[in-house]
Amino acid sequence: MNPTKERLALVRHEMAAAGLSAYLVPRADEYLGEYVPPQNERLAWLTGFTGSAGMLAVLPDNAALFIDGRYTIQAQQQVPKSCCEFHHLIDEPPVNWLADQLPKDAKVGCDPRMHTLAWFEASQKTLARKSIELVEVAQNPIDQHWQDRPEAQAQPALLLEQSYTGEASLAKRKRLASSLKEADADVALITQLDSIAWLLNIRGADVPRLPVLLAFATLAADGSATLFTDPGKLPKGFPKHVGKGVAVQALEALPTALQALGKAGKKVLADPATANAWCQLRCKEAGAELIKGDDPALIPKAQKNKTELKGIQNCHLRDGAAVCRFLAWLDAEVAAGRLHDEAQLASQLEALRREPGDLHDLAFDTISAAGANAAQPHYSHLNGKPARLRMGSLYLVDSGGQYKDGTTDITRTVAIGQPSKEHRKMFTLVLKGHIALAQAVFPKGTSGIQLDALARQFLWHEGQDYDHGTGHGVGAFLSVHEGPQRISPRGPQQELLPGMVISNEPGYYKPSAYGIRCENLVAVHERPDGMRHFQTLTLAPFDRRLIDPALLTPPERQWLTHYHTTVRKQITP
Amino acid sequence: MNPTKERLALVRHEMAAAGLSAYLVPRADEYLGEYVPPQNERLAWLTGFTGSAGMLAVLPDNAALFIDGRYTIQAQQQVPKSCCEFHHLIDEPPVNWLADQLPKDAKVGCDPRMHTLAWFEASQKTLARKSIELVEVAQNPIDQHWQDRPEAQAQPALLLEQSYTGEASLAKRKRLASSLKEADADVALITQLDSIAWLLNIRGADVPRLPVLLAFATLAADGSATLFTDPGKLPKGFPKHVGKGVAVQALEALPTALQALGKAGKKVLADPATANAWCQLRCKEAGAELIKGDDPALIPKAQKNKTELKGIQNCHLRDGAAVCRFLAWLDAEVAAGRLHDEAQLASQLEALRREPGDLHDLAFDTISAAGANAAQPHYSHLNGKPARLRMGSLYLVDSGGQYKDGTTDITRTVAIGQPSKEHRKMFTLVLKGHIALAQAVFPKGTSGIQLDALARQFLWHEGQDYDHGTGHGVGAFLSVHEGPQRISPRGPQQELLPGMVISNEPGYYKPSAYGIRCENLVAVHERPDGMRHFQTLTLAPFDRRLIDPALLTPPERQWLTHYHTTVRKQITP
Repeated sequence: MNPTKERLALVRHEMAAAGLSAYLVPRADEYLGEYVPPQNERLAWLTGFTGSAGMLAVLPDNAALFIDGRYTIQAQQQVPKSCCEFHHLIDEPPVNWLADQLPKDAKVGCDPRMHTLAWFEASQKTLARKSIELVEVAQNPIDQHWQDRPEAQAQPALLLEQSYTGEASLAKRKRLASSLKEADADVALITQLDSIAWLLNIRGADVPRLPVLLAFATLAADGSATLFTDPGKLPKGFPKHVGKGVAVQALEALPTALQALGKAGKKVLADPATANAWCQLRCKEAGAELIKGDDPALIPKAQKNKTELKGIQNCHLRDGAAVCRFLAWLDAEVAAGRLHDEAQLASQLEALRREPGDLHDLAFDTISAAGANAAQPHYSHLNGKPARLRMGSLYLVDSGGQYKDGTTDITRTVAIGQPSKEHRKMFTLVLKGHIALAQAVFPKGTSGIQLDALARQFLWHEGQDYDHGTGHGVGAFLSVHEGPQRISPRGPQQELLPGMVISNEPGYYKPSAYGIRCENLVAVHERPDGMRHFQTLTLAPFDRRLIDPALLTPPERQWLTHYHTTVRKQITP
Repeated sequence: MNPTKERLALVRHEMAAAGLSAYLVPRADEYLGEYVPPQNERLAWLTGFTGSAGMLAVLPDNAALFIDGRYTIQAQQQVPKSCCEFHHLIDEPPVNWLADQLPKDAKVGCDPRMHTLAWFEASQKTLARKSIELVEVAQNPIDQHWQDRPEAQAQPALLLEQSYTGEASLAKRKRLASSLKEADADVALITQLDSIAWLLNIRGADVPRLPVLLAFATLAADGSATLFTDPGKLPKGFPKHVGKGVAVQALEALPTALQALGKAGKKVLADPATANAWCQLRCKEAGAELIKGDDPALIPKAQKNKTELKGIQNCHLRDGAAVCRFLAWLDAEVAAGRLHDEAQLASQLEALRREPGDLHDLAFDTISAAGANAAQPHYSHLNGKPARLRMGSLYLVDSGGQYKDGTTDITRTVAIGQPSKEHRKMFTLVLKGHIALAQAVFPKGTSGIQLDALARQFLWHEGQDYDHGTGHGVGAFLSVHEGPQRISPRGPQQELLPGMVISNEPGYYKPSAYGIRCENLVAVHERPDGMRHFQTLTLAPFDRRLIDPALLTPPERQWLTHYHTTVRKQITP
């Protein structure tokens, strides 16, 4: 019995009824975020594939799953080979593949709620070159047939106090309203869940690992807003908490509201790269003028205020204490000959984080990787049998917590038994890069792409590198992957602004052997002379057994001593 | 007697006749390059301003000259204040200023040969928002009235032998033809003078400092080309030299040829950011489909082949010998108490470069800057009374030569008498940045913006910086400022490819006090393991009296010793 085969047949039935030659199923839901709640995991329901990125193209007689390099193996393990072929999501995009497969005048269906407008328009063009049409389906064929679909979370929203947010919603909305006026927009579609949560100072439990409410919002140029969500989730105190000018409507009222914007001929600001195609197409066809632009909350949310930065420092004290206790416990267990498996280790770390009682959720699924498993930067022990620690190897643990006062993200690499000379050399090169970035001083206007090489230079000199960015933005009790700040070889050229929080996580991965990563969070500060630098937020020691002091310069040794002294002083109660 | 006033009156007369409320005069000519031949210096004729960038907006009763920070003082010295006001070219672009000045339905005139299509289209939009029209003039009002216009250079073109170019024109054209096919273009407009010279392996003397012929070219997707230039300048051997498939026409035949492309419905590739608006507008209105894309010669020209790299090394031996002799002479003169002025120093250096008899031209006007004058990175001693050297100061000299086998560009900063402690500290910080970049190792895919911080990091740590890029591309017996490679905080994200030649020139400028710059040219090389690094091409010592060895790390000292040993070994005959 193969559920994928059966479910594909149901989709094909709807395709035939609608005259479609193909139908595209992405992993995303209508909120287009990194985290998707279980009731919206349509791709997983259809195929069994649970990776965080992918797209399925269903054709009458075959299907193709497009995944990136992280999921090549996992996809083949989870999806029956008899049901589909596998392609690379980036090297061979689904739409280009379809353009080559399908005859002239074919129709490709998609649900425009699950795609960005940017994707929708680019795909239309690509297909049009082969005289193929991209069409919207009237009803999502999966939603029509998903019988045992999970219930949505029913937990109420949390009204986050000003002692955590540092700025009332009304003040935030007034600030954003002026940027709307600058963009010559009457109203903005605020579609990113973390932007809505930040703007209204609310949090939720609707999505795993991301403390947000499933919602949609519009913000007018006078600072008033409409929140579309399940009104039953809003606590009584919501109107007072959020201040005047916020209307609440059910999600079902959204289509009518978008149409009303159109009918009134409004100029509607939306980000075609993050907002779903459906909401923008509905505005436009009803008569609105679309203004393409960034989500106006993006930069204000990324630049943490003093209250948020204080909170982030505070939660790092508690989070650091849990990590320090974990590292001490791990050393003792290994010394006692108790070599746990990756799942046990992740559980122990989570238990220590939960102990003080203030952990809202983990910030992401813990990467607990023993030995060669750590050579995959995004390894998950949940996709197979968790491996056990072995003496003479390295253990990598990348984890974080969601607290009311902040979000944490830390990676430590630990020697299990005696590390090899190579382990120590490569760890020290990674650490040198981490220190170079931690110590960087840079002027106004500098973006992450300019600093990325500081973290890689020592590996590059040895002919080595790592195949991921050096730093991603982190939210304040919000997404652990927050834009637009980034430290990466590929950009974007987004200035690192005071108050932005970002990770500093160079690594090194030797295939089938071991993986190393040194990750702290840092905040961007501005000095009185106008130069900027990073303040390290994370508090937990690096494994001294993995450091070759002969490879460190005196200033690097000084930084390390100072950091370890700070950790000891701050963490010791 | 004020010629500017008189000449502005002539322009205003034509404006009135054409019903224009304003007319824009840029510094550029129809080739839109950095260097403009005397007969095309229209802005200088009209205003007296001789800077390398600027634009004049002429209105019936007033005029405004737009210049950037480099030329604020110079413009006020050269242009009568009674004739115009001054504005910042970047902060307050002329078209935005006009949009604020002029009434609805006004007409702004320009000669579209002197502007890029990108500028033309953006300006049209900016003005249209205020219901102002940007119109093409039928005849250039300056050309109509410029009586004593200089004659164009009459020197014949040079056919550059394959022993210098390493690749025949036919082979180059075949290579580019395939990129035209990839871009789905029938024909490309090759409008940059150095691209034409590279493609046909010819050089000229039509433009100061840039060894090119004034010309225009089209390249078809079969590799055939048409060169539009003064046919009288082409030596007899040209057809054989250039290989089959190259037609020659007079520049006057260009309008008809562009119209023919349009009438034939050709798909025409052109770069709207570098090709003049006029040629693209003529193609389009005649029926051509414009394909916006990079000049197809851009990357192939930037990636020097083995023959070119060998030539570039060779010319650096001769150029380095001249610079070494100059530095030794300067030391002896200062020791003898003969403190020359900036003009005498520049002349002496030029004389030493010319002595072997193989210098084609200087690569640019020498920057010979004594003491505080060097605090202006683009200082020219030609714009006033040349300053004399003073004991206890620094002298900065930035110079280069055009040789048949390559183009050089070198800056040295020299202590005149005893340097101060601050001089030595700041020079050493600049040199440390130079060494960090010279020693960089980086993977495939790395662009200059990623490496720029390596050169600035030591200054940044002291709260200092320099307000120019760290490196510009350099041609092979072509432009000393060649794209698309660059090492700069602002991008572009252009990969540094093997064979690209680029400058390494960090600096430090203390206003009204002194200026420091350490510049060598380097070539990008790829190692057998796929990593890339720079090979330093320039051969001349850095002034040891300005180096504080205590500030150098052992690897930096090693690099310096190795470099100076190499210079001595290579330059000593």
